[in-house]
Amino acid sequence: MVAKSVVKRFKEILGEANVLEEEVDRFNYAYDAAVLEPKTPALVLKPAHRDQLGELVKLCNENNLPITVRGAGTNLSGGTIPEREGVVLLTGGLNKILEINEEDMFAVVEPGVVTSKLAAEVANKGLFYPPDPGSQSVSTIAGNVAENAGGLRGLKYGVTKDYLMGLSFYDVDGNLVKTGSRTVKCVTGYNLTGLMAASEGTLGIFKEITLKLIPPPQTSKAMMAIYDSVEGATETVAAIIANKILPCTLEFLDNFTIRAVEDFAKVGLPLDAKALLLIEVDGHEGQVAEEFEKVQKICKDNGAAKLQVAKDEAEKNKIWEARRSALSALARLKPTLVLEDATVPRSKIPRMVKGIEELAKKHNLAIGTFGHAGDGNLHPTILCDKRNEKEWHTVEKMVEELFEIALDLGGTLSGEHGIGIAKSGFLANEIGQASIDYSRRMKLALDPNNILNPGKLIGD
Amino acid sequence: MVAKSVVKRFKEILGEANVLEEEVDRFNYAYDAAVLEPKTPALVLKPAHRDQLGELVKLCNENNLPITVRGAGTNLSGGTIPEREGVVLLTGGLNKILEINEEDMFAVVEPGVVTSKLAAEVANKGLFYPPDPGSQSVSTIAGNVAENAGGLRGLKYGVTKDYLMGLSFYDVDGNLVKTGSRTVKCVTGYNLTGLMAASEGTLGIFKEITLKLIPPPQTSKAMMAIYDSVEGATETVAAIIANKILPCTLEFLDNFTIRAVEDFAKVGLPLDAKALLLIEVDGHEGQVAEEFEKVQKICKDNGAAKLQVAKDEAEKNKIWEARRSALSALARLKPTLVLEDATVPRSKIPRMVKGIEELAKKHNLAIGTFGHAGDGNLHPTILCDKRNEKEWHTVEKMVEELFEIALDLGGTLSGEHGIGIAKSGFLANEIGQASIDYSRRMKLALDPNNILNPGKLIGD
Repeated sequence: MVAKSVVKRFKEILGEANVLEEEVDRFNYAYDAAVLEPKTPALVLKPAHRDQLGELVKLCNENNLPITVRGAGTNLSGGTIPEREGVVLLTGGLNKILEINEEDMFAVVEPGVVTSKLAAEVANKGLFYPPDPGSQSVSTIAGNVAENAGGLRGLKYGVTKDYLMGLSFYDVDGNLVKTGSRTVKCVTGYNLTGLMAASEGTLGIFKEITLKLIPPPQTSKAMMAIYDSVEGATETVAAIIANKILPCTLEFLDNFTIRAVEDFAKVGLPLDAKALLLIEVDGHEGQVAEEFEKVQKICKDNGAAKLQVAKDEAEKNKIWEARRSALSALARLKPTLVLEDATVPRSKIPRMVKGIEELAKKHNLAIGTFGHAGDGNLHPTILCDKRNEKEWHTVEKMVEELFEIALDLGGTLSGEHGIGIAKSGFLANEIGQASIDYSRRMKLALDPNNILNPGKLIGD
Repeated sequence: MVAKSVVKRFKEILGEANVLEEEVDRFNYAYDAAVLEPKTPALVLKPAHRDQLGELVKLCNENNLPITVRGAGTNLSGGTIPEREGVVLLTGGLNKILEINEEDMFAVVEPGVVTSKLAAEVANKGLFYPPDPGSQSVSTIAGNVAENAGGLRGLKYGVTKDYLMGLSFYDVDGNLVKTGSRTVKCVTGYNLTGLMAASEGTLGIFKEITLKLIPPPQTSKAMMAIYDSVEGATETVAAIIANKILPCTLEFLDNFTIRAVEDFAKVGLPLDAKALLLIEVDGHEGQVAEEFEKVQKICKDNGAAKLQVAKDEAEKNKIWEARRSALSALARLKPTLVLEDATVPRSKIPRMVKGIEELAKKHNLAIGTFGHAGDGNLHPTILCDKRNEKEWHTVEKMVEELFEIALDLGGTLSGEHGIGIAKSGFLANEIGQASIDYSRRMKLALDPNNILNPGKLIGD
């Protein structure tokens, strides 16, 4: 419960209509895309101007009110669940692209700008914003920064943090902190810009975000490689990288996912294929031609039964539609979908896939595996029913074993989905208690009342 | 003075010979490459193994002893000057390349590995480590990380932080903190990896550093463009970027620097040229050919009097020798050399150069300007004599005015040299007091006794 006097202040700042008090409204913001218990916030705030953010966070801090910022709520680790109730702050009203600077190749945006909208506007000006998380058609830039979102192009183009040049954010006292620059090089002050990437809303409330843009590739070429064995596909992935080729996208689908996708999207996938690779190379025309030929040879050398080269944009889109519909296709099969993103060094992909298959067999549960094989970031997706307590217990055990396999291979718990509340209990296994203690000292100093998205990332 | 009992403990950990007590030895570490007052450390420590670092920092913390880590001492902002005396820790003995992983394209190194040595070893394995600070032949990787060193290739390839995948470091209590991963994507825990870049030795003592490697460009082509006017050269820089071409290097030399270089290195530079651009494009053969032709056209369209294309590696080296000798050439002319690195968005390069020229005229002091024009990071270099008090006062005023010009153009105080003690007094002008306060809260929490390179970056 938020004190009436505080609610009154929120209404004075935002206007009556932008403070949601009714449970039916508040419940919409109790969950996100992770499979976790919903928690209904005590209040929902809808700022209409970014200048209001400072006053809001200050008021929260003065009243010990937890604050969880929410963009599109596509978070896959519970980062947008208001774990300690408190207020949820919606960035939907802060969706202005403030500047696209073509001369110096950067953009300045408000937190709530939708990723794909920015990408499209940037493309209209002949430039390129590469990060493309799976949820890009609804996800927001501030959410992408807070989670350091990845995507299909991570392999060649990196992730959100690689495009984050600077930002301003409000600290818990409502003071505006500026970090980074509009210049390519900047070492003025601590790299708080870098620190804010993947900070999951726990260190400040973003106001404006400056993003690097780059010239777009001249051309690209895509194909689908069809395999009779999973090993052939995974060995191909390792071999492409070992040959020092960086495709812009290099995606994997196992047979279970292929069948689910075909059943759902009818794109003409080969139902008996044991695995598919979807590969796109981009860049200068000459380079694309050369690399594409090399990739085709590597696929064949590693046992690809068939290569389907996209002859035009329409065929290219069809290939990517297959990939894009993987998650939705799997989601139809069972009530609960546990989508993981434990990531390994790319040469370890063959062993990771084998480990996943063995897990599925051992626990007798279906796993559809697809994802960004080229950067070691697969998405093994466990199909289950959370209401079945015994099964759910098995799933939880499976996930733990999956993390162990990834760490044993020199990998990481999360490549792009974040730690949130879903994985914070496993953090020490990877980074050790000293790293958690160091992080907690930092967090406590910057947020003494622990109001900024409490309980996330490093637990309490 | 360090208590005898503490000196004894250091000797027990490191061995007698690795603890330098004599003033004649200690004085060598009193200064770095910045024009600042030397401060002799109370003690100099030479660890021979990275496992010793934790005990050393713990002992310093327990005894309130400031600790300044020093690689090659090439710092240009006083970052390696032991401002509060205390101990200087030399990383020279920690110079092992622990791993170069070709399959997954990363390297793991000890702090004291020399930049150019790593680059050469990596090149031997057919890979590429792009960051190339001017001091790379002696500078160390830990120093590069602590300063987030830039270099000539920053424009296209980014700076040190863009290649920093992970590291381990000791906190003030001697606990080992791990951050980042050997995977391309990692969002496990706070991005302490990013935070450590440019932290100037104030947040921890680096133990092991993991760096991203990339496939090398297939080929490259270089040329020198000669201009009768400074404007022609600076407009060319802006036009190349506006045409969405990212050369790997795009360097500027003004007439003053040209004459100094020619006098020093005798590489055959045109003495009457008002400005030179040294340009290299790299990548796939077809792309290089295409971009090189476009760049030549842009140079001519913007008034280049002559283009000298390097016909082979020897001619290419000659072009880069001209650039590499700029600093040494200028250093011969006057007792004191003040090398700045205020940086502006690249489209503002013409106005920045004009501003520098006006400053030189106004104060009647010689400035040689050269540097990384392509990323807005010029190095105006003031020639003076620090022993001349009146002149030195003028220089200090000039530097302040230079910062103002850069900030007015939307730029930053430092592109790649760091803040250290040289610029910490100006920090608030750019990032504001709230950002400094936020940073200080963080620093205090992570280093309560303020022993890690105190006084640097954010002052006290």
